[in-house]
Amino acid sequence: MMTKRTSRTVDVGGVKIGGDNPVVVQSMTNTDTRDAGKTLSQVKRLVEDGCELVRIAVPDKKSAQRLPKIISDSPVPIIADIHYSPQLALMSIEAGVAKLRLNPGNITNVKDIKNIAKEASSMSIPIRVGVNSGSLHQHILDKYGRSATGMVASAEEEIGLLEGQGFEDIVVSLKSSEVNMTIEANRTFSRKYDYPLHLGVTEAGGGRSGLIKSAIGIGTLLHEGIGDTIRVSLTEDPIEEIATAYDILRSLGLRKRGIDIVSCPTCGRTEIDIQKIGKSLEKRLGDVTESIRVALMGCSVNGIGEAGSSNLGVVGTNKGGLLYVDGNYKETVPNMDIEKMTDQVERAIRDYLNTR
Amino acid sequence: MMTKRTSRTVDVGGVKIGGDNPVVVQSMTNTDTRDAGKTLSQVKRLVEDGCELVRIAVPDKKSAQRLPKIISDSPVPIIADIHYSPQLALMSIEAGVAKLRLNPGNITNVKDIKNIAKEASSMSIPIRVGVNSGSLHQHILDKYGRSATGMVASAEEEIGLLEGQGFEDIVVSLKSSEVNMTIEANRTFSRKYDYPLHLGVTEAGGGRSGLIKSAIGIGTLLHEGIGDTIRVSLTEDPIEEIATAYDILRSLGLRKRGIDIVSCPTCGRTEIDIQKIGKSLEKRLGDVTESIRVALMGCSVNGIGEAGSSNLGVVGTNKGGLLYVDGNYKETVPNMDIEKMTDQVERAIRDYLNTR
Repeated sequence: MMTKRTSRTVDVGGVKIGGDNPVVVQSMTNTDTRDAGKTLSQVKRLVEDGCELVRIAVPDKKSAQRLPKIISDSPVPIIADIHYSPQLALMSIEAGVAKLRLNPGNITNVKDIKNIAKEASSMSIPIRVGVNSGSLHQHILDKYGRSATGMVASAEEEIGLLEGQGFEDIVVSLKSSEVNMTIEANRTFSRKYDYPLHLGVTEAGGGRSGLIKSAIGIGTLLHEGIGDTIRVSLTEDPIEEIATAYDILRSLGLRKRGIDIVSCPTCGRTEIDIQKIGKSLEKRLGDVTESIRVALMGCSVNGIGEAGSSNLGVVGTNKGGLLYVDGNYKETVPNMDIEKMTDQVERAIRDYLNTR
Repeated sequence: MMTKRTSRTVDVGGVKIGGDNPVVVQSMTNTDTRDAGKTLSQVKRLVEDGCELVRIAVPDKKSAQRLPKIISDSPVPIIADIHYSPQLALMSIEAGVAKLRLNPGNITNVKDIKNIAKEASSMSIPIRVGVNSGSLHQHILDKYGRSATGMVASAEEEIGLLEGQGFEDIVVSLKSSEVNMTIEANRTFSRKYDYPLHLGVTEAGGGRSGLIKSAIGIGTLLHEGIGDTIRVSLTEDPIEEIATAYDILRSLGLRKRGIDIVSCPTCGRTEIDIQKIGKSLEKRLGDVTESIRVALMGCSVNGIGEAGSSNLGVVGTNKGGLLYVDGNYKETVPNMDIEKMTDQVERAIRDYLNTR
């Protein structure tokens, strides 16, 4: 890993983004904001799964009017997502949101920005300049096209307007639905500014391909030390975004939460059904938030090495699974019904977590 | 993207790895190799989905004896995966495999390597020096520990032995179950050698976290221009490895195959059920191998921009989905039963593919 880029720290209702703080995980509700109850219950589900900041779309006055209720009942700071309307931005500030996201593609009027900056400043509310390659302003498109250069130019323009008001409580995001464009825009920006960066690949889609675009775009930048907070955008239940975010951060050793299962792809050598045991364990141990590395290996080729460098490991042999704890062989789980083998491995993991 | 690292070209039964050739997609069977019928039918399924090279475990003599049959009936070149036994390597060469994978962690005897190199050379069969952090040789572990440095040292040692025999028909892989270690080992190696690199994160596991480790490890390296062939290792049906490999390559613009769905995560603004339409389309259009970019967007904020820069786009409004073709508005798919909307979008995509 390269060393983390130096960035300023911005305080979002007590959650710190940037500087030496851990990368913050956020998501966005997809409920109708006018339904405060539904929205709140989604916020709470997200928080239970590890979400640290929640953004909410504020597309109309009715939505803005629901903000005070949502904010007061939410366990984490709430961010208002604003497009087109300076008035909704001002209403959200008044409602007490912890941060505003403005899209420089559709809020560009100098007087409007001035007003919003003044009010946000008086309430100590940071603003995210949220550039999206899908909604660049026409004058940017005319000059640069839909490109990384255009995205950075769009951010710079809005930052200039805010700084012109003495406002520097800024977070920036540069999201494209194209992975390469996202990486390039963030790299370019990070060489010029020290504002904290919010990372994401926008409109990544759903399923496998959405996960992969997000993992490569966000992961490549984090590996370079770029990025202070992340939001994975999936066309899925937003709960999936949180699990994915932690998987990305865990893969790079940036945040530790839950079980890291190391398991082989199985091949002609495999002695026990690792795949079934792994799938079943992942489900059964979904409640675990402590960090633990578990190796499930089909044979001894890499098995002994992996099991030996994990907290807990199982290596398939024709006699059954050799169980390793903290690098030492402990016992053999006999070859039997796969459910029973899974039971025994699960018990060993829970015992391990309870006694350490 | 950084420019691709310069690497030599190695010919694997007609499939070229390295140089300016496209990144080659490979996988490995997980059937019992002694069952030639089952193994062949898995090979064929993999090839149908786009696999260009298939590796097969050869753990015993009986497996080696099945190789001629498998090789003669396989539509793509077959690679033998060898551990421990020089004899099985020699039997595989004789059987006509297109490449050997040797693990320098368990085949290190100079005389053995000499014999294998001589036979492989006479048959023009390349050898992959396949280092795995889970099976480093004890003398490497003693000196370097389980580390990127140790992985590179292990590769160098085996390369030295092969080069000592005048053998340079070499591909190298440096796989760890840790993403950071995988990236570091490959970076270090690629600065010193121009042998083509086979990339993979080993024992990545299954499900979401397996996809994410693979995408970050392989994707970060490819984005840097490192990597000539990839194998995604998942604890899943190997068919999943192929789809994942193409998703990774497509995300980076390195290979184009199938549908690239750009779709928004949905939020409080969403006007049509993009998520259902997307999931259903992905299933229905699994047969498409042509490259096409389809945008499915819940509202107009980024929708017009994304739809306008895709081959085909749908933007949700309260009147229904605005359908764009090659950047131009074509018609409105009325808000109706989601199945019927999906039917209409699928028809538009198939028409597009048929007429271009």
